[in-house]
Amino acid sequence: MKALRKMQPARGLSFESATVPAIGPTDVLVRVKTASICGTDLHIYGWDRWSQGRIKPPITLGHEFCGVVERVGEEVAAVKAGDFVSAEMHVNCGHCHQCRVGEAHICQNLRIIGIDQDGAFAEFVKIPASNIIKLDPSIPEHYGAILDPLGNAVHTVLAGPIAGRTVLVTGCGPIGLMSIAVAKACGSSTVFATETNEHRRTMARKMGADVVVNPAAEDAVKKILGETSGTGVDVLLEMSGNPTAIQQGFQAMRAGGRASLLGIPTESVPLDLVNDVIFKGATVQGIYGRRMYETWVQMTALLKAGRLDLEPLFGERAPLENFEIAFAKLQGGLAGKILLYPDGMPA
Amino acid sequence: MKALRKMQPARGLSFESATVPAIGPTDVLVRVKTASICGTDLHIYGWDRWSQGRIKPPITLGHEFCGVVERVGEEVAAVKAGDFVSAEMHVNCGHCHQCRVGEAHICQNLRIIGIDQDGAFAEFVKIPASNIIKLDPSIPEHYGAILDPLGNAVHTVLAGPIAGRTVLVTGCGPIGLMSIAVAKACGSSTVFATETNEHRRTMARKMGADVVVNPAAEDAVKKILGETSGTGVDVLLEMSGNPTAIQQGFQAMRAGGRASLLGIPTESVPLDLVNDVIFKGATVQGIYGRRMYETWVQMTALLKAGRLDLEPLFGERAPLENFEIAFAKLQGGLAGKILLYPDGMPA
Amino acid sequence: MKALRKMQPARGLSFESATVPAIGPTDVLVRVKTASICGTDLHIYGWDRWSQGRIKPPITLGHEFCGVVERVGEEVAAVKAGDFVSAEMHVNCGHCHQCRVGEAHICQNLRIIGIDQDGAFAEFVKIPASNIIKLDPSIPEHYGAILDPLGNAVHTVLAGPIAGRTVLVTGCGPIGLMSIAVAKACGSSTVFATETNEHRRTMARKMGADVVVNPAAEDAVKKILGETSGTGVDVLLEMSGNPTAIQQGFQAMRAGGRASLLGIPTESVPLDLVNDVIFKGATVQGIYGRRMYETWVQMTALLKAGRLDLEPLFGERAPLENFEIAFAKLQGGLAGKILLYPDGMPA
Amino acid sequence: MKALRKMQPARGLSFESATVPAIGPTDVLVRVKTASICGTDLHIYGWDRWSQGRIKPPITLGHEFCGVVERVGEEVAAVKAGDFVSAEMHVNCGHCHQCRVGEAHICQNLRIIGIDQDGAFAEFVKIPASNIIKLDPSIPEHYGAILDPLGNAVHTVLAGPIAGRTVLVTGCGPIGLMSIAVAKACGSSTVFATETNEHRRTMARKMGADVVVNPAAEDAVKKILGETSGTGVDVLLEMSGNPTAIQQGFQAMRAGGRASLLGIPTESVPLDLVNDVIFKGATVQGIYGRRMYETWVQMTALLKAGRLDLEPLFGERAPLENFEIAFAKLQGGLAGKILLYPDGMPA
Repeated sequence: MKALRKMQPARGLSFESATVPAIGPTDVLVRVKTASICGTDLHIYGWDRWSQGRIKPPITLGHEFCGVVERVGEEVAAVKAGDFVSAEMHVNCGHCHQCRVGEAHICQNLRIIGIDQDGAFAEFVKIPASNIIKLDPSIPEHYGAILDPLGNAVHTVLAGPIAGRTVLVTGCGPIGLMSIAVAKACGSSTVFATETNEHRRTMARKMGADVVVNPAAEDAVKKILGETSGTGVDVLLEMSGNPTAIQQGFQAMRAGGRASLLGIPTESVPLDLVNDVIFKGATVQGIYGRRMYETWVQMTALLKAGRLDLEPLFGERAPLENFEIAFAKLQGGLAGKILLYPDGMPA
Repeated sequence: MKALRKMQPARGLSFESATVPAIGPTDVLVRVKTASICGTDLHIYGWDRWSQGRIKPPITLGHEFCGVVERVGEEVAAVKAGDFVSAEMHVNCGHCHQCRVGEAHICQNLRIIGIDQDGAFAEFVKIPASNIIKLDPSIPEHYGAILDPLGNAVHTVLAGPIAGRTVLVTGCGPIGLMSIAVAKACGSSTVFATETNEHRRTMARKMGADVVVNPAAEDAVKKILGETSGTGVDVLLEMSGNPTAIQQGFQAMRAGGRASLLGIPTESVPLDLVNDVIFKGATVQGIYGRRMYETWVQMTALLKAGRLDLEPLFGERAPLENFEIAFAKLQGGLAGKILLYPDGMPA
Repeated sequence: MKALRKMQPARGLSFESATVPAIGPTDVLVRVKTASICGTDLHIYGWDRWSQGRIKPPITLGHEFCGVVERVGEEVAAVKAGDFVSAEMHVNCGHCHQCRVGEAHICQNLRIIGIDQDGAFAEFVKIPASNIIKLDPSIPEHYGAILDPLGNAVHTVLAGPIAGRTVLVTGCGPIGLMSIAVAKACGSSTVFATETNEHRRTMARKMGADVVVNPAAEDAVKKILGETSGTGVDVLLEMSGNPTAIQQGFQAMRAGGRASLLGIPTESVPLDLVNDVIFKGATVQGIYGRRMYETWVQMTALLKAGRLDLEPLFGERAPLENFEIAFAKLQGGLAGKILLYPDGMPA
Repeated sequence: MKALRKMQPARGLSFESATVPAIGPTDVLVRVKTASICGTDLHIYGWDRWSQGRIKPPITLGHEFCGVVERVGEEVAAVKAGDFVSAEMHVNCGHCHQCRVGEAHICQNLRIIGIDQDGAFAEFVKIPASNIIKLDPSIPEHYGAILDPLGNAVHTVLAGPIAGRTVLVTGCGPIGLMSIAVAKACGSSTVFATETNEHRRTMARKMGADVVVNPAAEDAVKKILGETSGTGVDVLLEMSGNPTAIQQGFQAMRAGGRASLLGIPTESVPLDLVNDVIFKGATVQGIYGRRMYETWVQMTALLKAGRLDLEPLFGERAPLENFEIAFAKLQGGLAGKILLYPDGMPA
């Protein structure tokens, strides 16, 4: 089969011939229909410091995808050939403390398909049956390809009460943009968004943000406090990883507010714990991955009921072999999602 | 001033001259602009057994309203003349166990304005300052008049997680109908509704219910289980008080589901606790009034952000003195809200 | 090996020779050291209506036990021969809605070892590796044998806040008695218990109940309201399944209280939903099994830290073959736990 | 009357004659029996930067106390002369966003008695009736005097689940020490404590800590990870405000853990948000004051039921006029509580 692989410990990826994965008794082999590029894939392409410590070439990348089950292992009963599926690509151990208390998404022994073992930028991918998510046929294939990052957004938004609450999204990359749509669909009141990139601010408005602020051009904290009678927002959804955005987000959050942090800062962030957390009686949540598998149930229920319009997110589509153009475009800061087709473009 | 009062312990109400209430140092006097008739008002009109035990004539009825502050007591700082307001008409004691643990809505010494003391079917009504809710000018006056029952609906829907959940509303009177709109606005997936009255079923569809069932004509439990892959709904919002509807609701709810009960049965209800609650690991919640004042904050935030379209609910409007026609229409089973105007009809 | 089995669809059990179970790749074979008799075993012994519908002889009973791992299947990594273990005997399917949202204990396809397949009243028992609970060596073997019912108690007590709350336990069978100890260990304030059997009332005091009431001799509701300034208890833990006890429990619970129901009524229970649930704003929870596996983590942590003294519960101990005397004693209403030893009595 | 007052914007306090406070219609006048010195009082004595910005002399200090009601204003019904009481000294506005959503303890307009207006280091203190806490006569007077800091401890410990959880208390000042006792009483499993002061480590053991670590002498993180199978503790209760202790606390907390922060750092703290919060899926809570008034209900219930032994905390007792010695001793780093008696020493 054809696959997009990192062959050497160096910048770049290559389009290769690879063997169709052999599956074990509890595995599922999926024929990939549509895949999508994650920011993490860009890091691996560029071979940054993090990639150098984590990735062991040769390996097939790709952890955002949907497809159709080709065949299943002999002990698999709940999935069958022909099922339309996506998958949770974080594979948990099942026996550590976190797995035992219902927090498998932060398992101490987590492995990620497409990072630690061969992934979905290929004609076929092997997945443990427990991680397969069967999709309702009413969910469009391009939505099926981005459930991994949409799950990040749903996990973040629904990590606490959202209905009737004011919300600030700091950072309007793809997950930030999805969070805007999810928050609106789940009953948030005013949604604020901050973003320095003009294209992304335009996208934020399309996704439903009520007030979009360019923090490079105006005082974002002052603006948001002004629009909330001086109280601040109920909920901060931090999607940038940028220290200044994090600090502004905390300042614009009301006493008693919730800060859910998904964006990844590259270094230690100085926090004014007294004024921004302690005296505020705030709740700060680290968000990682998606709840296994509650987030998937919530997300697919929202999609099946037609509550989420994510169309503005979708841009380029390309056959898998044309990956270079796609990666180059994303390096340029486009917030949308680019879809790749290992098995031929859809009609 | 003019007021709609119960003067005698007998059926009926009368339109009377009354004295404008004198206010104490912590009270607010409100000029009523729009009032709305509650089902409880119908019971008092009809002088049923409950009314006979609770109501002490002479008394002015009315607990759904909005208006403009006329004047405030000398110790009142947070409300001023001219403010556009509604009010929580349940007045709590402040010192019982429930008041002390943040559950003032189930205060042991609760008194209700319009039930236990003079209410809002009048040109003026006296309210403790703590119970006044200032309304954003963007909230329409007719919405301001129905915040009391809308608060019941919001309290019920948001008494547990709702986003991405399937919902069954049993009983489509006004609060049931409002609950449909609130559940949809807060991210529920499929909303089912059961109702025997055809007019109300039509209303349920207008409010956004996805599947509306007439339990007199088909097997509601079978229908709902069939539409949820045999699993049942995540959330039951019981709005009828009807024993059969309650039992069907429990049967159509999934294991691990939430049943939030607002409808008032008139007698003891036999429950299959083993199969419908215990083996299901279900959570059953009694819902009373509105959380003081968290529900008001949620509700007004939803309205201010334009998340709720309640227009289908509104029907007749009449000057207060024409109350007889309004009460007669509601006795006929109309699900909508009828508005009364003590101070003249709006332009 | 020797095993205690139901061989025919009729009253009684018999001590039989049986084959040591063959284990599959994901199974564990455990040498049983200590087992304990559950009330359910008494029902199966007596061959009541429920047993007739559920049990398919021949089958080995027993679902409360601890032992030492004899050997493990080839795919089992987290358990090894020699480990001191107990097990969750409810085996979930892993793919139904409840399994997917973190509620495996109410899986739609649950099977119970010792009920639906051969259990632990034998020298060896086969358990899926996922269901094995490794025990800290500091936990005494007789405690290890009763973790299944202790888990019921812990699940019930910790199904909501308990610290600083008044508690009523209705029904002082073994799980009721354990609940008293667990509630005290977890910071409850006054613990009330109701029980008609004198022996069990004595046990309740030994387990730490502050006020023990015989509802056959005095007005339990009046007594409890009197001792709580008329407010009622914060938490009802219903352990009897008796309709009168359930009704009294609800009446003795405060507005805003929590009722957690574990006891199994044999028929439909008429509830005054208006006064006991709805106007009270109460929360009623059905409790089934133990959370998989959060309850096990909580329970073993409490035991390891020495927070629970359950010694008063333990009575008779006997070799497995002397089961007839043990079953006869339990039929007589003794609340304690009787231990059976398939592999010889401990030194 | 006699009172301990700050008369000038300078270091020190003085014992003065003062007028008995006049009370308004909703106030209560309390005759102070026992008062206790808070760390904040030491800051005000020393006239540090914070004091200079906040305190407006002349003012009577003191916000930890109990006493007996002398008289009440004409509108006060729930408190009467002779009642044994303490009080919540944080006075909330009742109408800001936080007050409206049940978070009065983080009111936007909070005023503190003993900081912003005359306090309890005097024969009499004036308190709004809403803030009076009636105490059960079974609660000892010296416990009544320290409910303010005990409430901080209870608020922190019960800000999330504690039963069956491992706990780390960083910093063993009075509130840290109380937190150890509260955590144990509420079912925590192993309690770890870190503290550099030897006297305080001894106190920590007396209060019930299982493992007490001197982070100046050994690697606290390594020690705690070692004792928790490498997993880390479930709950961090941060009581020191020390940046190093905060960082170590986060490192010793497990993925999915809860960090509740009460200690006040004097400057910005650099946090490794990625590894200590985000990838851990941690929850971080700022803790301020006590929940109004849920914490008081929990705390007094625990005391009434005899769940808390705080005797090791109590050291010196002195008449109010001998305050200089008491303040001097506390400056020396003693962790215990010193009691002052404005109305004469108890028999």
